[in-house]
Order: sequence, then structure tokens, then C-alpha cells
Amino acid sequence: MAKGIPTREEDYAQWYIELVKQADLAENSDVRGCMVIKPYGYSIWEKMQQALDKMFKDTGHVNAYFPLFVPKSMFEAEEKNAEGFAKECAIVTHYRLKNDPDNKGKLIVDPNAKLEEELVVRPTSEAIIWNTYKKWIQSYRDLPILINQWANVVRWEMRTRLFLRTAEFLWQEGHTAHATKEEAIAETEQMLDVYAAFAEEFMALPVIKGRKSENERFPGALDTYCIEAMMQDGKALQAGTSHFLGQNFANAFDVKFTSKEGKLEYVWGTSWGVSTRLIGALIMAHSDDDGLILPPKLAPIHVVIVPIFKTEEEFNRISDKANEIAKALRKQGYSVKYDNRDTQKPGFKFAEWELKGVPVRIAIGPRDLENGTVEVARRDTKSKQVIALAELEQSIPALLDDIQQNIYNRALTFRTNNTTAVNTYEEFKKVLAEKGGFVSAHWDGTPETEQKIKEETKATIRCIPLDAKEEEGKCIYSGQPSKRRVLFAQAY
Amino acid sequence: MAKGIPTREEDYAQWYIELVKQADLAENSDVRGCMVIKPYGYSIWEKMQQALDKMFKDTGHVNAYFPLFVPKSMFEAEEKNAEGFAKECAIVTHYRLKNDPDNKGKLIVDPNAKLEEELVVRPTSEAIIWNTYKKWIQSYRDLPILINQWANVVRWEMRTRLFLRTAEFLWQEGHTAHATKEEAIAETEQMLDVYAAFAEEFMALPVIKGRKSENERFPGALDTYCIEAMMQDGKALQAGTSHFLGQNFANAFDVKFTSKEGKLEYVWGTSWGVSTRLIGALIMAHSDDDGLILPPKLAPIHVVIVPIFKTEEEFNRISDKANEIAKALRKQGYSVKYDNRDTQKPGFKFAEWELKGVPVRIAIGPRDLENGTVEVARRDTKSKQVIALAELEQSIPALLDDIQQNIYNRALTFRTNNTTAVNTYEEFKKVLAEKGGFVSAHWDGTPETEQKIKEETKATIRCIPLDAKEEEGKCIYSGQPSKRRVLFAQAY
Repeated sequence: MAKGIPTREEDYAQWYIELVKQADLAENSDVRGCMVIKPYGYSIWEKMQQALDKMFKDTGHVNAYFPLFVPKSMFEAEEKNAEGFAKECAIVTHYRLKNDPDNKGKLIVDPNAKLEEELVVRPTSEAIIWNTYKKWIQSYRDLPILINQWANVVRWEMRTRLFLRTAEFLWQEGHTAHATKEEAIAETEQMLDVYAAFAEEFMALPVIKGRKSENERFPGALDTYCIEAMMQDGKALQAGTSHFLGQNFANAFDVKFTSKEGKLEYVWGTSWGVSTRLIGALIMAHSDDDGLILPPKLAPIHVVIVPIFKTEEEFNRISDKANEIAKALRKQGYSVKYDNRDTQKPGFKFAEWELKGVPVRIAIGPRDLENGTVEVARRDTKSKQVIALAELEQSIPALLDDIQQNIYNRALTFRTNNTTAVNTYEEFKKVLAEKGGFVSAHWDGTPETEQKIKEETKATIRCIPLDAKEEEGKCIYSGQPSKRRVLFAQAY
Repeated sequence: MAKGIPTREEDYAQWYIELVKQADLAENSDVRGCMVIKPYGYSIWEKMQQALDKMFKDTGHVNAYFPLFVPKSMFEAEEKNAEGFAKECAIVTHYRLKNDPDNKGKLIVDPNAKLEEELVVRPTSEAIIWNTYKKWIQSYRDLPILINQWANVVRWEMRTRLFLRTAEFLWQEGHTAHATKEEAIAETEQMLDVYAAFAEEFMALPVIKGRKSENERFPGALDTYCIEAMMQDGKALQAGTSHFLGQNFANAFDVKFTSKEGKLEYVWGTSWGVSTRLIGALIMAHSDDDGLILPPKLAPIHVVIVPIFKTEEEFNRISDKANEIAKALRKQGYSVKYDNRDTQKPGFKFAEWELKGVPVRIAIGPRDLENGTVEVARRDTKSKQVIALAELEQSIPALLDDIQQNIYNRALTFRTNNTTAVNTYEEFKKVLAEKGGFVSAHWDGTPETEQKIKEETKATIRCIPLDAKEEEGKCIYSGQPSKRRVLFAQAY
């Protein structure tokens, strides 16, 4: 157990926060609700960005950049969207500071520099982007528009938690415009698939693809698709959303196009996003009481090499070999750290790199040099094996692949074991209270029932799974007929 | 001459703006002073980011992310820095909107959601970062810190111009902390060299490395280094700056460390940045009356292929060949666009890709197929040559290298021809009025003289070149003794 970090059993919430801090991923800043993403945490985000950006480009999208500020009148144009975000917006009202006449060296807001119209710091960019698309779209020939933006957004959350919920966060937001409803829905679904593939292949995180109930829909969307993942405390975490906007924003911003048939029609839209929240999901899904467990495909460092030595002569001989190994692995495309600090003992180093979640550790001592071997430890299972130097270049890639797969399998097994189908409300409450996890149950489809269940159990409908089987059933709460099960859980 | 774009001769400023718009690089948004960077413009920025990010990492830097907002009390801690930016800051004063009781569907700022302390939208991040470094630095072992941030910043400029000066812009800002003055100065100089290398190797833009006079120094810096480039109208454009901050921010934020000798000392700092302004520089330095001329190393598309055909049968045969060529060139790492639109004539396409600055155009007609050749045109000189298909894979890389070099040489020749050494103020004014460009002259080193020259001629000291020769001279304005020439110019 790492120093000062409670076990997951003892205090899951605190375990998470301590892990984020002690592994040097992020910390709270002195700006309310805003975090500092430290270099190690940011390098995970960079890995995520690279993989996602490639997936977006491979599906025909391009990047662009739109303003940080949204004038109030533009912001309020799509009423549902505005209503959904109005209560958590940072508002710019002035554009200048001046010297405080009563307090030398201090500044005050210059009352003469009040903006005629206030600016909202974007909580999401549909408004500013559709206001721009209006100028870009006249004909069906201008469609589709397939744009993504990497940006910061601000939502004035009252209760924040590093990565999971912060006032400012980093994300990507795709905003596309289409000539037909069908094409827009296909895009919405395609991007959900991209997110699911990213979560499973890169984050080693199994996800359920589904649609949100009306209550949980993005403000201004006709339909919200999502991927939901299970954390180790059994709670759900929404890891990405893809929205079918219908013609709502086209209506609000009067974005019309002339169709092939010469008719003037409103444009169809989608938007979709994932954020630095994914880093929180990554940690909470895989890590253990000793620290992070990072999937190799997103780990900033794949392999750490630790020398075990007593004399300087030993250190020098080991270092030669370590550098040789590092060079060979780097040539294969891996990121390798040789921890040659002489200020720390091997045990300290082992614990530190375990805390930081480096997938593979290689230890080399004098006897290894004699035998032509090294000791290789994997972070996920903490098992060790002795491997001949000659085999290392073959073993490491296979080991990393195995770790990636094993982490995924473990998370999938955990989810399977913690997903329970129930048929009565009694059962439902019992499972939530005693076991937690995902609960698969029939629901009558009304927002009222969902709201009541939420009030009584804190569980919400995470999604209506895309692969839900058609089956006759009765709503666990109202007894009304239902055609398919939905997934309930308490959520982050 | 491209449609609706004045020549450089007719109206250089308007030529620039029209080029930015018509080449689809950027446009003004409906948010005062903020631009929309369109996909084609953004893809140039992505290329710049990739190259710079690699150079930063190769010199030992890592990326991180700090908050967008700076509380007012934190902002004002370093007084000179605060004073320098106070007049152009966007200020967040509230965190919520509410429904307007008098106006259904409209929102107003909720007076009950006034912040206790106003937040400044970062115009630059020294304050928030040094406030954070205070927590990270105790001992010399914590140093150096070598961090870069890719971010948006806001400076409330009254007169804006796409890319060159906008209220919000994208940039990178490096912020480093060191144990010694010497190390901090070495870092400042190293990053200036990185910027100069980037400008010259990637942007094909020759730059003068130098130091700013006191008047032009970054607020809060002890010394500001810069790279200055010449635009085609003879004006100077500051393309990047690297600041030696001394212990100013460490003092302001009380950042001390215990040295190897056990003494408590203030930390030394640097900061350095380049922004989307570089895209403006790129355009203004190289482009011509027909449109952009992009250096191959930053061009989003390296090669465009245009088919010349009359019948569908011809089109199909040409397309087969074009796709084959595209595939081969892509395999070599080039970005290739096959413009197979049947809605536009070749002449239209030629003009469009010239406007967009694609370095190489390949045209293929039926006769080319028979002869096993293509027509290759280069954007920089507009010259054409017939090249055998078999030689294409060798010719194109060489041609692109040649274009990169030629653009650089052309800009260097232009700068050389437009740099004039003068020894009297009469000469100085005459050169500025009649010829423009850089004027190399002696200066007495006082801010007063610089200010007067600026008032009388609009020219400022762009820099004191690092390679300025020591020579005895007399200030052109005051006649006082001077030890080296400095570079004057009117500037963007």
C-alpha cells in the first residue's frame, strides 16, 4: 500500500484523489474548481489526443478553432441549450483593470470598461459554431461539414473533483452539419463507435453503448448516445457522448441550405465530445492499492529499468547493459526510463514506479549480468519472471500486449460480475444497497418514474443499451409494460 | 491576380486580409476581435505545433496545463507584469445567468452570482504558473523545471487583424525555473535559437536574433530576446520572444529553494512564446498576387493532381494513373490531393490551388498518358516542366526541397536588399520614407531617444542584433556616442 493512500476498501473516493496527487497527475490550483494538469498527467492526455485525433481524421474530420467567448444573445438563441448551461457559466463583463486609487500597487475593475454585451466563456460551442456555419452553408454542396475542435471549456461546477468534474476542463468537441436526417444519425452513431473503440482498444476499458433517457439528454439534442463504463466501486462513469441535434441549432441560427432538388431546408446537426475526465476513468477502472495501473497503449513510460548494485564498478557495468537494453527497446518504439538515481534505493524506486503505473519494470543486478538475464516484473499482476537478455526484444512487446489485454479482461470480468438483472423494485433496492454495480431492469419509459427511482435510490438510468433484447416485461417501479431492460446505476 | 484581391502594390494590407479569407485560412467571428481559424488555416497551425513540440521535447521540455483564469490578487502580484497587461484584460465577474423576468426566453447576469474576487482571463500565464511553482520547489533537486503549455490567451486589443493581432489567440508558452542566473540565461538563449531554427528551417523565414530595448521589453522581464522577420512591405514582424525573468516572479510569489550549499535563494525564471501570429508572418513573407505560397514543410497539401480530360473514358484512364501517383507519393510521406471534381474546369482548379499555396501541381492529360509523362508546376516560381512518370518519385522530393530553399533564399535576398545602414537622421528619415525596410543605425541607448524617433518616424528599435559588431559611432538622433548599430523599422 502506497504511503498515505487509503486502500480502495477503506475509502475509495480518497484513494482516487490521493492517487491522482501522489502519482503527479494533477492537483487543485488556487483558482476555484480549476486544476493544474501536471506533466505526467498531461502526457497521458497527449497520448489520448494522438489516438483520438487519428481516429477522427480517419473518419473524414478536420480540426478548426472557434472563439472562447460567446456573446449572451448568441448563447441564448437555442433555448434548451442555454437553459441547460445558464446556471454554470463564467461571465466576462469588463475588458480592463485600472490602478486602485485607494490602494497603491493594487488593481480594480475599470467601471468605464463595461462590455455592452456580456460574454459567456464557452461551456460548449454549439452556439458559436452554428452561428458561424450559417455563413458557410448555402447549398447541399457545402455539406457535410465535419469539424472537430480541441479546446478548453468552463462549467461552473459547485462540487469539483480532479479530472472527473472541474470548472475548466480540456476536451474535444465535434460539430457536424448534414443535408439529411439519416446522414446525421449515421454520423452520431459512427462517433459513438469511435469512442467505444478508443475506450476498449486504448484505455482497456469495456463500455456499454446506449442512448440516454430524456432526463439525461444533452440540452438541445433530440437524442444523446453514450458509452458507460464501470468503476471499481461499481459506480458508472459516462465516458463519452454523441448527440443527434436534429435541426434544433439550424433553427435557432437560421442555417438553411438549398437541396439537390432546389428546396430550402434546415441543416441537420450532431455534436460529440470526450474530455480529460477520461483520465479519471482510466485511473478508477484499473488501478490498485499500490498505485496506477496504466494500459501500455496510453502509458507515458512503457518500461522502467532499475539497477541493483553495491559498488560503483557494478553500477557502471549494469548501466552499460541497461542503456543497451533501453536503446533496443526505444528502437522498437517504446518509451523507456533508466532510473539511475544514486539517491534512492531499489525498493523505493520499485514503489515509485508502481505508484506511477509503469507497465513493465526490468531489474538488473550483478548476478543477472553473469547469467545474461534480467528480472522482469509486470505492474498489472505484480508477477515476476527471469528473462534471458537475448529474448528481451521479443518478450517485452508480447508482455505489453498481454498486459493491455489482461487489464481489459479484468475490467470486463468485474463488470460482468457486478451487473445484475432484477425484476422487482425490492430486488433492485437490495442489489443497489448491498452489491452496487449496474442493475438491468424494466422501466416504463417515463421521466417521472426515472425521477422517483433516482430520489429513492440515487440510481439513474445510465443508458438504454443499443444491444438490449426486445422482451416483454413490467416496470420495476410502476408495473407498467416495458419492451426492454435499461441499465441503472449510481454514477459519477 | 486572384479574384477580388488587390495586388500587394495596390494595397498591401487589404491584399493580406483578402488572402487570409479567400484561401480559407480564417475569418472574423461575431465575437469582437476573435477569429475563427478555419480547417485549412488550422492545419498549418497543427504542422507548426508538431514541429515546435518536437523541438521543445528534444531540448528536455514537457507539456502541462494551467488554469485559464487568474484571480485578480494573483495577477497583480508581479507589479510590472500586471501593469503591462491590466489595460487589455477580459474580466470574469459572475458565474451564472438567470432568466430575464421581463423578457421571456432571454437571459441576464444573475446579480446574486457575483464572484468575491474577479478572475482575469489569462493574457499570459507567468502569475498562475509561478504561484504553482511555489508549491513544487523546495530544494535545488526540484530544479530545473522545464515546462511548456499549449493554450489560448486573451488580450483585449482595440485594433485587430486576422492572425496578426486578435483578442484571443493560440500560442505556446514555456515557463522554466532554474537554480542559477547563468542557467536561466542559457535557457533563454537556447529557446531563441529554437525559434530561429524553426522560422528558418520550417517557415523558410530568415530572422534576425536580437535583444529588445528597455521600451519594448516584456513586462516583468529583465531581458527580452526576439526574432524579427521582414515582410514584403518592408515592415518588421516580431515572430517570437524569449524572456529572461531574473528573480522577478520568484520574488513576487516567494519561490525560494535550498541550494546545494544549504542557502535559501530565490529561483531564476524564463518564459518564451510563439503564437498563431506566425501564420500571418508566413503569409506576408512569401505569398504573391495570385495567392499563398506555402513552404513545403508546413503545407497541409504538398501536391495537387489535376486531370485534363474531355471524355469520361479519358477521365477514368487519367484517374487510374493519378491515383497511382498519389499512392506512391503518399507512401513517401507527402500529402496529396487528387482534384477529381467534375464541376470545375482545370483553369479554375489551377487558380484555386495557387490561391491556397499548394507547392506542387501535377497536371495529367490524355497525351501525357501516351507519352508516359506529366506536367509539373511549382507554385513559387510558377514555372512548369514535363517529367517522365518513371522519374516522379525522385523528382518530387527534390522539387519540394528546392522550393523550400528557394522561398527562403528569396526572402533573404529581399531582406538584404531592404536593409540599409545610415549614419545621419536625415538619411534615416529618407530611407524610411522612400524605401522602408530595416534601417541599421547608431543609437545612444536611451529610452527617450527611442521614443522621440518613434514619434517622429513611427519606427521602433526592433532589436539589438546578437551579432552586432562593436564599432564606435554616434547616435543618429542625439549625437551621443554609441558602441553598436541597432535595427530600426516600422513594425506590425
